[in-house]
Amino acid sequence: MVKRQLLLLSSSRVHGYGGFLEYASNDICNILTDNNVSTVLFIPYAKRNHEEYLRLAEKPFKKWGFHIASIHTQDPQKAIQEAEAIFIGGGNTFRLLKTLYELDLVKAINKRVLEEGVPYIGSSAGSNVATRSIHTTNDMPIVWPPSLSALNLVPFCINPHFQDNPENSTHMGETREDRILDYQEEPDSSTVLGLREGATLYVKDNQAVIKGIHGGRLYIRGAEPKEIKVGSDISYLLQ
Amino acid sequence: MVKRQLLLLSSSRVHGYGGFLEYASNDICNILTDNNVSTVLFIPYAKRNHEEYLRLAEKPFKKWGFHIASIHTQDPQKAIQEAEAIFIGGGNTFRLLKTLYELDLVKAINKRVLEEGVPYIGSSAGSNVATRSIHTTNDMPIVWPPSLSALNLVPFCINPHFQDNPENSTHMGETREDRILDYQEEPDSSTVLGLREGATLYVKDNQAVIKGIHGGRLYIRGAEPKEIKVGSDISYLLQ
Repeated sequence: MVKRQLLLLSSSRVHGYGGFLEYASNDICNILTDNNVSTVLFIPYAKRNHEEYLRLAEKPFKKWGFHIASIHTQDPQKAIQEAEAIFIGGGNTFRLLKTLYELDLVKAINKRVLEEGVPYIGSSAGSNVATRSIHTTNDMPIVWPPSLSALNLVPFCINPHFQDNPENSTHMGETREDRILDYQEEPDSSTVLGLREGATLYVKDNQAVIKGIHGGRLYIRGAEPKEIKVGSDISYLLQ
Repeated sequence: MVKRQLLLLSSSRVHGYGGFLEYASNDICNILTDNNVSTVLFIPYAKRNHEEYLRLAEKPFKKWGFHIASIHTQDPQKAIQEAEAIFIGGGNTFRLLKTLYELDLVKAINKRVLEEGVPYIGSSAGSNVATRSIHTTNDMPIVWPPSLSALNLVPFCINPHFQDNPENSTHMGETREDRILDYQEEPDSSTVLGLREGATLYVKDNQAVIKGIHGGRLYIRGAEPKEIKVGSDISYLLQ
């Protein structure tokens, strides 16, 4: 049986809902408290300045009563093996995934989360790498990871910071939906869950539910794109 | 001596300036007429449906009095060797570059353009692949080329469809400038020329000038980003 607890955030911030991670504080605290987590392992690899990123990320966790320890100050393999919970923050998805491969952490994290039930929280790039692959990231390929395959904690792709087609736009570049449908023209492409800023995906074992304050949009190859409201059960995507 | 004639368009369309390629018709016709071009070789690999793309692309060229032949109906190597002029259209930059590598066309095009002076016109993805690398594409990595190194017809990167930081935006994702500066945090990153929709870069041998109807924004590592107006000579970027 698959054993997992994931909270995947579209974004670290939502306009009008306070600072870093504040809009999702209840869900983050719940997943940590339910698992008696005392210290969260922070993975800052999506940004270049790890120290600065740690200072930003530790604020909300400290306020909520949790310790935070960053992987960049420790032996990375050992840190993963001993983690009570993992939080991967946003930034550039390619940089993040490349670093996870370089440090040989992809399989290690997958095993800890799926076989041992270690709670995983991701935001933006940290949600992207939690999925089957990063084919639907919004980020520029500023570096070149050895593969786009990711942690595979869920068997589909996520597009974080999902944006609806703008009304009355004069911009001629592709919309987000254009880009996702372009991806799905490829023969071995996956289902894509677009998560609007403020949408979160909560997965417990084989149950998946949209939480947060905004919903998402679901792209299954060959089907019409579908609105997914907060509270929707989308466990069928896990099969 | 480097011998080249390039016309690199940010976009195939500009709001309010007519259909496919219409806003750049004068510059396109000039580069073709100056070189006595009768038939343009079209490379449609950035889109999946080559036939449909050919039908779109051939309209303006026919109207202007040029023949167009698509590489997908010919032996690709032979087509490049015999091309009088090359036009690579927009679409997904990863898909385009992957196909160029699969068909072993990267070196062939580079040689024809830089050593034999074959005129090259690119739009959007076609401008991206003309540069040193596609690190600053806006597209999703829907497929996985063997490298991000591109045709290297100019020694810097381009960001097509460049957008200024939006005023009063409530979106929390990175701005285009954030993304380019993220790229330039990487140690071996290049200069990036952001071309607004309607901006074009014209290169003749060792001279480079911004043409079109809108300008761009220039990112040189370690320097303040700089506005580049239509008519600016940026030949110093070619050195």
